[in-house]
Amino acid sequence: MEPDFAEPGFFPLLTELLRWRRDVRHFRRDEIPEAELLELLRLAQLAPSVGLSQPWRFMRVRSDAARAAVRENFARCNADALGGYQGADAALYARLKLSGLDEAPVQLAVFCDGATGSGRGLGRRTMPEMAEYSVVTAVHTLWLAARAKGIGMGWVSILDPEGIAQALNVPEGWRLIAYLCLGRPAETHTVPELERVGWEHRHKLEEVLVDR
Amino acid sequence: MEPDFAEPGFFPLLTELLRWRRDVRHFRRDEIPEAELLELLRLAQLAPSVGLSQPWRFMRVRSDAARAAVRENFARCNADALGGYQGADAALYARLKLSGLDEAPVQLAVFCDGATGSGRGLGRRTMPEMAEYSVVTAVHTLWLAARAKGIGMGWVSILDPEGIAQALNVPEGWRLIAYLCLGRPAETHTVPELERVGWEHRHKLEEVLVDR
Repeated sequence: MEPDFAEPGFFPLLTELLRWRRDVRHFRRDEIPEAELLELLRLAQLAPSVGLSQPWRFMRVRSDAARAAVRENFARCNADALGGYQGADAALYARLKLSGLDEAPVQLAVFCDGATGSGRGLGRRTMPEMAEYSVVTAVHTLWLAARAKGIGMGWVSILDPEGIAQALNVPEGWRLIAYLCLGRPAETHTVPELERVGWEHRHKLEEVLVDR
Repeated sequence: MEPDFAEPGFFPLLTELLRWRRDVRHFRRDEIPEAELLELLRLAQLAPSVGLSQPWRFMRVRSDAARAAVRENFARCNADALGGYQGADAALYARLKLSGLDEAPVQLAVFCDGATGSGRGLGRRTMPEMAEYSVVTAVHTLWLAARAKGIGMGWVSILDPEGIAQALNVPEGWRLIAYLCLGRPAETHTVPELERVGWEHRHKLEEVLVDR
């Protein structure tokens, strides 16, 4: 039987959640209870995956050594990135807070196990990248579920993914898809930070829709 | 102010939606009103994107010629895929319905414009694949919003993506991320079809979670 998604109140709140999901980079330091985190990860496993291959692999990054390696990797990549901008762009970039690596109580590295036998290759023959895309839908599911529970998430991509995989000593063939910071947000917004500071504006639907 | 996601009833329904989202391959032929489709696409634009680059490009595939080219591309790739299985696997694969291309009233090709200047490269220097991942989150947002409105979606990946891009005459540099069928579902399930027919089973969290 179909759940009552038409119940008044559900769709408006779902819309609010999509609008409100925002990348979070300002975290409070209080811990997230283990049971709450595991519940969120179980929900992430409901994400779609090509051929039901479920290629997502979650790694909780907890040790001081592992976290320090990630912070160092980010600092290096972020300095390189800053060097690629000039003038006002460089000044604005330098002021952006682009990760919550120093404060976020929970940090997750999410990998794709492209060699998994699960799903027996179905749907991946002509588009092998579908395995990685499946992991992305799990990350996005986690993001929405966390946000609905008052937990903020930030996706850090200013990282050298091979360096991270090496530092975290991952099994052969795992590829880094996302490095995630989670924690209670120190502030919340429905407007993306990059829009607020004038780095980029939102597109209208007409700008991204064509017919054939 | 934070919307009331803690309102009793919201999280259980969100969980139901995640469980119930399922890839749909059996569609009724009735049309989806244009206004409803455009509302869903506007919601998809709320998806996260690296550097707010919003690299998603939606193409409604409507003409008979374009749809025939996609069907032909699928038939060829699906025959090739079938040839890669043996014995019982091949018999099971041959019985699976792997697309709703013949019936789905709405078909969308979703591309990534990797050359977009939007976002000014932020977050894509070391992980350029973040642009494609951003498009995946838009597809997943569309999927959830559609499902909450009683519209089913199926993601067809048994396609040669370059052949599709050529047949649909897309602008230079657009890469196919997803070919989507949308319509009212002819049947609904909370258990994935590939699980029901015994192609694959669901993993437990313990199987995909490690600590460092």
